[in-house]
Amino acid sequence: MAEAKVLSGAGLRGQVAGQTALSTVGQAGAGLTYRGYDVRELAEHASFEEVAYLLLYGELPNHADLDHYLHKLATLRDLPQALKEVLERIPTNAHPMDVMRTGCSFLGNLEPEKNFKQQHDATDRLLAALPAIMCYWYRFSHHGVRIDCRTDEPDTAGHFLHLLHGKAPSELHRKVMNVSLILYAEHEFNASTFTARVCASTLSDLHSCITAAIGTLRGPLHGGANEAAMAMIDKFKSPEEAVRGTLAMLERKDKIMGFGHAIYKDNDPRNEVIKVWAKQLAQAVGDKVVFPVSEAIDKTMWEQKKLFPNADFYHASAYHFMGIPTALFTPIFVCSRLTGWAAHVFEQRANNRIIRPSAEYTGVEQRAYVPIEQR
Amino acid sequence: MAEAKVLSGAGLRGQVAGQTALSTVGQAGAGLTYRGYDVRELAEHASFEEVAYLLLYGELPNHADLDHYLHKLATLRDLPQALKEVLERIPTNAHPMDVMRTGCSFLGNLEPEKNFKQQHDATDRLLAALPAIMCYWYRFSHHGVRIDCRTDEPDTAGHFLHLLHGKAPSELHRKVMNVSLILYAEHEFNASTFTARVCASTLSDLHSCITAAIGTLRGPLHGGANEAAMAMIDKFKSPEEAVRGTLAMLERKDKIMGFGHAIYKDNDPRNEVIKVWAKQLAQAVGDKVVFPVSEAIDKTMWEQKKLFPNADFYHASAYHFMGIPTALFTPIFVCSRLTGWAAHVFEQRANNRIIRPSAEYTGVEQRAYVPIEQR
Repeated sequence: MAEAKVLSGAGLRGQVAGQTALSTVGQAGAGLTYRGYDVRELAEHASFEEVAYLLLYGELPNHADLDHYLHKLATLRDLPQALKEVLERIPTNAHPMDVMRTGCSFLGNLEPEKNFKQQHDATDRLLAALPAIMCYWYRFSHHGVRIDCRTDEPDTAGHFLHLLHGKAPSELHRKVMNVSLILYAEHEFNASTFTARVCASTLSDLHSCITAAIGTLRGPLHGGANEAAMAMIDKFKSPEEAVRGTLAMLERKDKIMGFGHAIYKDNDPRNEVIKVWAKQLAQAVGDKVVFPVSEAIDKTMWEQKKLFPNADFYHASAYHFMGIPTALFTPIFVCSRLTGWAAHVFEQRANNRIIRPSAEYTGVEQRAYVPIEQR
Repeated sequence: MAEAKVLSGAGLRGQVAGQTALSTVGQAGAGLTYRGYDVRELAEHASFEEVAYLLLYGELPNHADLDHYLHKLATLRDLPQALKEVLERIPTNAHPMDVMRTGCSFLGNLEPEKNFKQQHDATDRLLAALPAIMCYWYRFSHHGVRIDCRTDEPDTAGHFLHLLHGKAPSELHRKVMNVSLILYAEHEFNASTFTARVCASTLSDLHSCITAAIGTLRGPLHGGANEAAMAMIDKFKSPEEAVRGTLAMLERKDKIMGFGHAIYKDNDPRNEVIKVWAKQLAQAVGDKVVFPVSEAIDKTMWEQKKLFPNADFYHASAYHFMGIPTALFTPIFVCSRLTGWAAHVFEQRANNRIIRPSAEYTGVEQRAYVPIEQR
């Protein structure tokens, strides 16, 4: 074996592990771009499906493209009976990300991607079906209801909220969910995306890559931050209590989720977008606690630690105001990030070499086998 | 963002991405070691469970340790009823690796690893249950039989062969399966193991890491080589035909699986071990075709391309002689490599930093959003 090069820093931090044309993170002039577009502009003007199309097909769709795409997704929403029967066998207290991982994996048995020419169709199918995988299991296990997985909602945001609540959402909720799905859609070589690419590099199928990415996003260092933020916000009854509580947590060196970022150094461009919408939702529901508590924590973290809220922090209250159970926060992330994951899988396949790094050996020296009688 | 360092070579080849005390691959003096022991010595003297214990618990077990471990695994073999019902819903023509991936993922819903103190128990449970996941689905979908997932076989090798064939294996078959499981158990930072470590680095659960690894091993550049080798060997009726056929494939620049290796440059130490056993199995069944054909391909590849057979090539005929359907070759790999994957997950958790590399951006420059009416 040729002598391996030792990289500085654990976790491959700051090391280029490949190429992408999909996004930039933390580069000068724009905090986050998808194929050249500032995510803040996309969140303001575009629908999630326009962004999904941009990531998966390379350019923003025109009217005809978008109409065709929305129609395609709408026809792909229902779940096969066998998948419903699998979801019914998952316990109520299961981790919702285990449900998403299993639902995606099982669908791969029923509707496998037989060759890479099917990669777009397999992705669009998952994009359409993931909200139903989440909501069918949730409503069945928690409420004993077998929901109809089809709705007449025109978009993913409305479809998900309709499945969850059993009725059409308000236009405000639809808009905020669209924004949220756009903000979470893509983020370069984060851990779950990198997992999808390593899996893709063996030329495995799409469902394997996405299943692997879901399992990686499940980890509390990655996808669970908005859930953890909500759990913290929920503990406080007033801004004053939140300030005292935050100071006490800092004093105890507790981990406070939803602040700072591995790549962004000054601010997370997604925060300013979702914070505005969280505030508007607070006003709409007449909230006098959750949003003020969130702002008090935010202010305290900045004063004490110069740490800024990342995308996850105000997502917590935004989802809360829309009546979304905390357990489903990370599964929503899956419904959005699927687009980025799949686009990275396509990229990896188009210019592939199997990802197979080396390791620095730190174990015992070579030794002779000892028969069991002599141990 | 600090300026990222560009690595030479795609696929992180030759780049150190972390540390391990588990194995060395292709280093001077030994082709492959597990915690310091030459894999050839382990394959000659040890049982698979001794090797699993070595990888997972750090040292070879003494008699008492091993007896306890064998007993523990034997009690963990049966599958929950809900998992059987899920496996019954997977089509006959599904990819067997999709079945393994889904079975592992679903088990994670029923028996989640609630905290890292459970990592050994969760791993031992999977080690005991994976042969039944594979065989229950295979026998049900192909033969319409609901097998009893419990046997009185003392070891994993015998248990698997018993579940598959419905009767106790010969001592020769048990020995060869033990050798095979040992040879495939661990191989440093190969793609599936690296996937497991990236997933573990978010502090996700064991089932997510193993599910991700199974999906990565599924790819034809990684786990499918022994299946592909068998398909090729099966095409030839005599050594002479095999020579002509191999020359023709080389002439056409067809990909010939089971030869050469990304890390080993001169030979694969696992090949000399499994080749001896494949030959012995050929003699035991009176084979006059498959083994001579295999040797003819091997000889031709060396003469023409100076390419040596890797671990997968003679595994194909060895499994064939034991009556194992080709579709189950890679799932057996899963039952073995689980030990290496899990040991790497434990290592990653013990000294963790989230694995989050950077990417070189090759996309379009930043551009202004264009309203849909103007596209």
